Amino acid sequence: MAQNSIGHGPFSPEFHAASELVGRKWTGAIIYAIFNGKTRFAEIAAVIPGLSDRLLDERLKELVRHGILEKRSSEGEAKPGYHLTRKGLALRGVLIALYAWAINWPETE
Amino acid sequence: MAQNSIGHGPFSPEFHAASELVGRKWTGAIIYAIFNGKTRFAEIAAVIPGLSDRLLDERLKELVRHGILEKRSSEGEAKPGYHLTRKGLALRGVLIALYAWAINWPETE
Repeated sequence: MAQNSIGHGPFSPEFHAASELVGRKWTGAIIYAIFNGKTRFAEIAAVIPGLSDRLLDERLKELVRHGILEKRSSEGEAKPGYHLTRKGLALRGVLIALYAWAINWPETE
Repeated sequence: MAQNSIGHGPFSPEFHAASELVGRKWTGAIIYAIFNGKTRFAEIAAVIPGLSDRLLDERLKELVRHGILEKRSSEGEAKPGYHLTRKGLALRGVLIALYAWAINWPETE
């Protein structure tokens, strides 16, 4: 199925799904926080002003379900935290490009 | 206001607004179609399967409002079409990165 739809390029279900996932409110900020080494729920919540615990929990579960995050203990961690998978790490370039665009072209209103 | 919040980086209102705008259903596909030289409403509709005229109209207006598209006649066009502004053209890198990620990391379910 994925193979067949690659031919549709940017109009493929894969592209729709990816842009909606990345565009969901708070998702970019959460991934950024984890890029910056915040792996625990409370740490992530602390660096994102305005994000409720309920929504953070929902977004984290969604990102785990989509294979972008995994909950595991890394070396030196007593309790499991959220870590980017290879699929999640690959999003770095997208978010950096989006962030640069947002800074260079702020909303004018 | 924009100046003050740049310091918040990826947790800034600018980043939230940009990721939500780009992530809105169909928006990436519409911008891609216009990158590919489809400037008229009917041409854009024809290359995006499943997108209703009502939603296309809504998204085009939204993109004009955000300064990403402008409706004007270009050389050789009898009627005005939708064209990317400089702000819109600057999104190219973001969408290409997102598209590459979507193709490399398709959903597994």
